Amino acid sequence: MAQMNPTVGDLTKNSEMILRFVEEARAASANIVVFPELALTGYPPEDLLLKPGFIGDNIRVLNDLAGNIRDITAVIGFVDRKSEIYNAAAIIHNGSVAGVYHKMFLPNYGVFDEERYFQAGDAPLNIKLDDITIGIGICEDIWYPEGPASVQALAGAEVIISINASPYQMGKALLREETLVTRAVDNDVIIAYNNIVGGQDELVFDGHGLIVSERGKVIVRGKSFVEELIVADLDLDGPLRSRRHDPRRRKVSLKADTAHVRELKLYTTKVPSAVRSELPLRSDAPPERLEEVLQALIMGTRDYVLKNGFKHVVIALSGGIDSALVLAIATEALGAENITTVFMPSKYSSHDSKADAEALARTLDVELLNIPIEELVGHYADSLSAYFKDTEENVAEENLQARIRGNLIMALSNKFGWLVLTTGNKSEMSVGYATLYGDMAGGFAIIKDVPKTLVYELSKYINKRSSNTVIPDRIITRPPSAELRADQTDQDTLPPYDVLDQVLRAYVEEDMSIDDISELGYDRDLVKRIVYMVDLSEYKRRQAPPGIKITERAFGKDRRMPITNGY
Amino acid sequence: MAQMNPTVGDLTKNSEMILRFVEEARAASANIVVFPELALTGYPPEDLLLKPGFIGDNIRVLNDLAGNIRDITAVIGFVDRKSEIYNAAAIIHNGSVAGVYHKMFLPNYGVFDEERYFQAGDAPLNIKLDDITIGIGICEDIWYPEGPASVQALAGAEVIISINASPYQMGKALLREETLVTRAVDNDVIIAYNNIVGGQDELVFDGHGLIVSERGKVIVRGKSFVEELIVADLDLDGPLRSRRHDPRRRKVSLKADTAHVRELKLYTTKVPSAVRSELPLRSDAPPERLEEVLQALIMGTRDYVLKNGFKHVVIALSGGIDSALVLAIATEALGAENITTVFMPSKYSSHDSKADAEALARTLDVELLNIPIEELVGHYADSLSAYFKDTEENVAEENLQARIRGNLIMALSNKFGWLVLTTGNKSEMSVGYATLYGDMAGGFAIIKDVPKTLVYELSKYINKRSSNTVIPDRIITRPPSAELRADQTDQDTLPPYDVLDQVLRAYVEEDMSIDDISELGYDRDLVKRIVYMVDLSEYKRRQAPPGIKITERAFGKDRRMPITNGY
Repeated sequence: MAQMNPTVGDLTKNSEMILRFVEEARAASANIVVFPELALTGYPPEDLLLKPGFIGDNIRVLNDLAGNIRDITAVIGFVDRKSEIYNAAAIIHNGSVAGVYHKMFLPNYGVFDEERYFQAGDAPLNIKLDDITIGIGICEDIWYPEGPASVQALAGAEVIISINASPYQMGKALLREETLVTRAVDNDVIIAYNNIVGGQDELVFDGHGLIVSERGKVIVRGKSFVEELIVADLDLDGPLRSRRHDPRRRKVSLKADTAHVRELKLYTTKVPSAVRSELPLRSDAPPERLEEVLQALIMGTRDYVLKNGFKHVVIALSGGIDSALVLAIATEALGAENITTVFMPSKYSSHDSKADAEALARTLDVELLNIPIEELVGHYADSLSAYFKDTEENVAEENLQARIRGNLIMALSNKFGWLVLTTGNKSEMSVGYATLYGDMAGGFAIIKDVPKTLVYELSKYINKRSSNTVIPDRIITRPPSAELRADQTDQDTLPPYDVLDQVLRAYVEEDMSIDDISELGYDRDLVKRIVYMVDLSEYKRRQAPPGIKITERAFGKDRRMPITNGY
Repeated sequence: MAQMNPTVGDLTKNSEMILRFVEEARAASANIVVFPELALTGYPPEDLLLKPGFIGDNIRVLNDLAGNIRDITAVIGFVDRKSEIYNAAAIIHNGSVAGVYHKMFLPNYGVFDEERYFQAGDAPLNIKLDDITIGIGICEDIWYPEGPASVQALAGAEVIISINASPYQMGKALLREETLVTRAVDNDVIIAYNNIVGGQDELVFDGHGLIVSERGKVIVRGKSFVEELIVADLDLDGPLRSRRHDPRRRKVSLKADTAHVRELKLYTTKVPSAVRSELPLRSDAPPERLEEVLQALIMGTRDYVLKNGFKHVVIALSGGIDSALVLAIATEALGAENITTVFMPSKYSSHDSKADAEALARTLDVELLNIPIEELVGHYADSLSAYFKDTEENVAEENLQARIRGNLIMALSNKFGWLVLTTGNKSEMSVGYATLYGDMAGGFAIIKDVPKTLVYELSKYINKRSSNTVIPDRIITRPPSAELRADQTDQDTLPPYDVLDQVLRAYVEEDMSIDDISELGYDRDLVKRIVYMVDLSEYKRRQAPPGIKITERAFGKDRRMPITNGY
């Protein structure tokens, strides 16, 4: 199984990558090599799928690719075209496309929009490779108990190959393993689950390929967030032995419509390799929770920056914890030499902030520019004085400072071609505690789906896992403040972050009502105020840069709320 | 038919609005009154539909509403809930919900995402109101030749009531009429088509209700972009007479499965009113193309501003045609007294620009502020000099000017609670000829789907339809310029707008490839350059404010392109 990192739309590069993995698999004497869902186009191609030219190019590239694949059978995700288009798997054998499977179950929830594009397939496909029967499935297909895997197994499949583009979110790896174990045991079948790895806009794919035996044992577990070829020899007698002991199968098979399973017969000249005991089955432990999130953020950042043609990023350091975490992640993703940081103090910036920003830049060995904004604040006040005289200071003056910083960092970005990484976290994004065109100005918001309490956890974890302190302790322990007016702290306006994050989780991720949340034990007026802030900030989030989804429900295409909303 | 303007999520307000129309219909002695698709929740409710609390509230409000509706039968769009949720029509009779129809065909293309939320219904519904048979359909249902209308008519319906939330785009009204005429004639049935009116974020609904006779004659045409109750007496013998002459019906009915049409029997105590010849059937001419677009933009602007709780807007005038058109539209939408304009000259602003901005503000009688940015430009240069010395001037210096203006107008917005209307057109949005956080900074981009050539047409049309000149001639005739450097015009960087707009239409709206477009007779290198600019600007559009869809394919939820895109 090739756990590959395609780039959406880059058919040539993806095709070359596929060929390299084919060579590697052939060198390992594999009989069959499997690529993820839509490996050729990348996932999700979104409205590229509405371009007839793109679909045509993807088919042309697939056929070219097929001509170059011999002495091994390959399963490659691509877009098939009849009168409609299909999310498809090509079975490549002896230098041509020998058969095609069309995905039968199309996800259209969360971040998925497959009903927008694809026709669903109408028949499961088994490959008969010499005397081995292999069922082909694509992603969503395996999530339905009554999906094709069941009838494929009844029609004789010893192995189900499931090709996927399954985005990362915290806890999803466990859910996937549990589902695959159930599906394997229910059908007495080996399941080989292959996934994309890499970042694509808001999404990160974690790889984490799996092979589960017919007894529900995880016999191979691929790495998370790393490209690799996962090689395994499978004991294909296992399912046959197991089925002799499973009475459920014989009851179900009377009713099952195995006749509509298409069978593709393929013959190899090569003697199928016996189980090679010398190839140890491996099952890497999955990363711990914080390490996993960190790897997702690192890969998401690296891929967004590099796949979009940038080499260098710029980050505004405030001396606070959010920008410190962003910098620590960016440093791992891109290397300190590809990062410039900038400190832009106002009269409200404390000495501690300056010292902490400097200490951080020093520790991580990144360039730090210093551009005070105090005078610019004064000049804006002059320009606006004719209209602002006799008014009370309000959010206008606070936002102006953030927007001056936004302008300065964008000027650096435009001048030197650097991508701006913004530093807002999910708690801020939720309640609108951020300035549009100010600290929200930039190309990628890497921690926008990370709640503030998790920002703290990750920062402490980064220090723990390193031999040195990466993020100076005072950055972690000082009370958070936007420093946009005198003696301000976040908790002047917001409840403590542990309370805020729990209420936000219930409201944003769980879609609970004000009543429901209050019943969890939170003050009803507080819940109401938080909900009000979340709803009111929808217009800001609509103009926010994309960021990396790590929770069950990220802002972006995962949560599509109206701005005009009287509820 | 109540052509009403609901607000998404505002169940109470929508319910009150429904009751007012019920009273009005009762006063007009109507037997039945019809409300649009999802009239109770507004359309589209988007992810509000994922909140169990919202669904529950909508059902509670519907039942309350039903209790208040007597002596008339009402058809009201709402969200029904069984184990799944449905886009539904409630039939209200004698103070309660007598029956419910579930939409059978769910649109999931363009701006529609109904597969994300709803289960499709499985049976058509006819109401038998005394001896009249009325089929109920919801929006997409009527667009399928094999949809429920056909079997409803075969099962006896003389009238099909089609309730809709069909968003406006240029030319769609004609397409709708043609479809309804075909459907009516094919089924020998009267079709009463009711639509929402009003703006909701990116969408405008044009109303334009229609009643088409069984012979395909438009016998009633409602107003466009105006709330109204459309009252008509229908000759229900028409379909019966017509059917005696239609042999197709008798051939088809042998095969049709009319048995799965549910029938809801309702009785009134009131004698059905005979055809009242004194109630003249009316068929208002639809507006001409430019008037129609203008009405869409006016309604879209008014509804976005007012439904989001704003009273006052602020617009940056450059002296150019885009901001002039935006101001002219805003003035019609909101009244001159609710608008402040601001002119923010730099050293590159010409005297003509200043004079033209002033003349425009004078003509439209709106307040004009003047905030020169020259000094601020200098102060930024000073702040950045340490890092910008020895660099060439590039887009950094140009964008800085636009972003200073963005900051100033946002400061006015924050200080006084005004909504910023931005002024970018579709041609600019397409090729990225706009500054993120600069002229793109604001809450609503009312002409973002209007190509530059249409900006000219609309501006000339506005002058033509008014007794006075609204937009000074020189604004229309001067060569367009961003005035961000000396002697700049748009055509330094861009091809003439008539060429640009044609290529953009082919690429953005028609999804044609570079080869396809070149074959239309455009220079291949030029087409390639334009396509490159469009693709490269995706990240800007992702952070743009919403605006009003008027073309077949607007930027926003209508066109979902990846930012990371190697194609």
